[in-house]
Amino acid sequence: MAARTVKLAVIPGDGIGPEVVAEGLKVLSAVAPRHDLAFDTTTYELGAKRWHATGETLPDAVEEELRGHEAIFLGAVGDPSVPSGVLERGLLLRLRFAFAHYVNLRPVRLYPGVTCPLADTAPEDVDMLVVREGTEGPYAGMGGVLRKGTPGEIATQDSVNTRFGVERVVRYAFEKAAARPRRKLTLVHKDNVLTFAGELWQRVVREVGAEYPQVSVDYCHVDAATMFFVTRPQRFDVVVTDNLFGDIITDLGAAVAGGIGLAASGNINPENAFPSMFEPVHGSAPDIAGQAKADPTATVLSAAIMLDHLGLGAAAREIENAVADDLQARAKDGWERSTPQIGDDLARRVAEQG
Amino acid sequence: MAARTVKLAVIPGDGIGPEVVAEGLKVLSAVAPRHDLAFDTTTYELGAKRWHATGETLPDAVEEELRGHEAIFLGAVGDPSVPSGVLERGLLLRLRFAFAHYVNLRPVRLYPGVTCPLADTAPEDVDMLVVREGTEGPYAGMGGVLRKGTPGEIATQDSVNTRFGVERVVRYAFEKAAARPRRKLTLVHKDNVLTFAGELWQRVVREVGAEYPQVSVDYCHVDAATMFFVTRPQRFDVVVTDNLFGDIITDLGAAVAGGIGLAASGNINPENAFPSMFEPVHGSAPDIAGQAKADPTATVLSAAIMLDHLGLGAAAREIENAVADDLQARAKDGWERSTPQIGDDLARRVAEQG
Ligand SMILES: CC(C)[C@H](C(=O)O)[C@@H](O)C(=O)O
Ligand SMILES: CC(C)[C@H](C(=O)O)[C@@H](O)C(=O)O
Repeated sequence: MAARTVKLAVIPGDGIGPEVVAEGLKVLSAVAPRHDLAFDTTTYELGAKRWHATGETLPDAVEEELRGHEAIFLGAVGDPSVPSGVLERGLLLRLRFAFAHYVNLRPVRLYPGVTCPLADTAPEDVDMLVVREGTEGPYAGMGGVLRKGTPGEIATQDSVNTRFGVERVVRYAFEKAAARPRRKLTLVHKDNVLTFAGELWQRVVREVGAEYPQVSVDYCHVDAATMFFVTRPQRFDVVVTDNLFGDIITDLGAAVAGGIGLAASGNINPENAFPSMFEPVHGSAPDIAGQAKADPTATVLSAAIMLDHLGLGAAAREIENAVADDLQARAKDGWERSTPQIGDDLARRVAEQG
Repeated sequence: MAARTVKLAVIPGDGIGPEVVAEGLKVLSAVAPRHDLAFDTTTYELGAKRWHATGETLPDAVEEELRGHEAIFLGAVGDPSVPSGVLERGLLLRLRFAFAHYVNLRPVRLYPGVTCPLADTAPEDVDMLVVREGTEGPYAGMGGVLRKGTPGEIATQDSVNTRFGVERVVRYAFEKAAARPRRKLTLVHKDNVLTFAGELWQRVVREVGAEYPQVSVDYCHVDAATMFFVTRPQRFDVVVTDNLFGDIITDLGAAVAGGIGLAASGNINPENAFPSMFEPVHGSAPDIAGQAKADPTATVLSAAIMLDHLGLGAAAREIENAVADDLQARAKDGWERSTPQIGDDLARRVAEQG
């Protein structure tokens, strides 16, 4: 019997989801015995197939079961055969909202050996941590449609920002910034246009910031931020931002850090009142599904974020080191491997560590 | 007497605004006699200074006067001494909304000789036209704050999308796409999350697209679009998008096309019911104001967009050619010039054309 057994819910999902999740679990299995750990996994078949079969995205009973786990490990959700938004809102966002994943943690880090699309950019230039709000903003799903299908049609979409919701994520971001060497926090918003929401975000950052005099704080409009991501990524250390802006800049960040195949994320409820959920930033990529072409590295790195969240930092570091070594080896050899081959290599590198 | 006199309102604005506008006018003066044109300009002192002196951003009487012009030529608006949003909403956005500038036209084009921040990217890889909606979306300014300053505070920000507003800009974008060699239109939105607004945009693109069978249409989520801007900009020809998404991706586009010093824009009312307004995409850049360091090229290119709008395409081409030549010469010589020196060189290149 292992000293600690983590009760883990697994949602492989759609497209390449099941392929990359399998490799993530492979690497977790490699790291577990080294730390006297075990993973007790339950797999939930949710996503396009289930929706087509039953019309369900996330039955209440399943949500209830998921609640009983320590963490959720998710591949990807979404398929062209399902109307846009159905699975995203009915499954992925529903989980983020139901389980109060108010921190959507997305490191943007260029690993040595990885090809950066930017000219003259070195790994030390790209090392930021984006703390994206995960439970409100334009993702709240509020709004509606009036006079649909007529010339007078109006569709609204409302961004909801609460003091409660903004403060908790801002506080988390300050904690993260205070623990990093550069101790810098940048608020990314668009306060000159979204004046109601922007003023609240600014005020909360100012007020919470007063408790963190060691952290230097600045502000950047989201439009300018996308520019700096490609011209001066060094400008950023920890970034805190709204749900939608965070969605946008972390995809851009993924591109800058070498591609969506490497971008990991955690949907975190820091108080552990609910299970947190870990997933690659990439989607289900139906165009390459079933061909063993997907890079499982993002999923493996998401597993590392999960271990960190579970207080298993040493195990997380071993996975990150294995990934770093693998990416450097890739850079030298440039060899093409299938999804399971990359998973095998990562698992082996974990097992071989000193 | 020139054959045609254009009644032009000039708003130099804040920061580097007056510096770049002066060069824009210099180049317009150089091109005018070649086409039997004259510009009858009236300068309006609007922006931070006026706000500090009188509390006014745009007096109704001035708006009324502006209405009597054929076009508005604007530098930049905004200053750190003025609360964020006051000048943006009270002057810039007010003009865009009052004068129904429903097309915010932003070419993203890498000129030969210009250094691109992306590795291995050639001028032919970056040649798109972003048609940003300019009069609705999250820019409508709707929303509000409840229980301000209390733990129960809520701030909302509403995106308003009308059939009328979406259709007119989508139609314009199809016209543009149909006139370009690649005849491709991409809708950029986030319809899997912003389902109310997204469905309206998708439906309108589908319906209007039926009238343009020669234009191929696709869709890209805004998060993925930012990725493609840096990894595969060739993917885009004409892009049509919402006000906020357009704001974000055109700043990114400016970076990709060599920097904000080159990015031009037109706020256009295609029916000429109101004067259209032309301005560089960059802001007032207070950090370099008054030092003759700003690149006036974006403003000069905005003047070319203005000439195009006024039906003076031949004059517009001369300005664009002068800019293209100047950027190539720059690439060879790499010399540093002041703002007026660049303006002089551009004016000379215009005057010397065959
Ligand atoms: C699939 C989609 C709903 C999701 C989001 O917008 O949050 C994705 O883009 C992400 O970034 O995790
Ligand atoms: C200054 C600001 C209000 C403006 C905008 O957001 O539209 C600017 O960023 C732009 O892109 O023209």
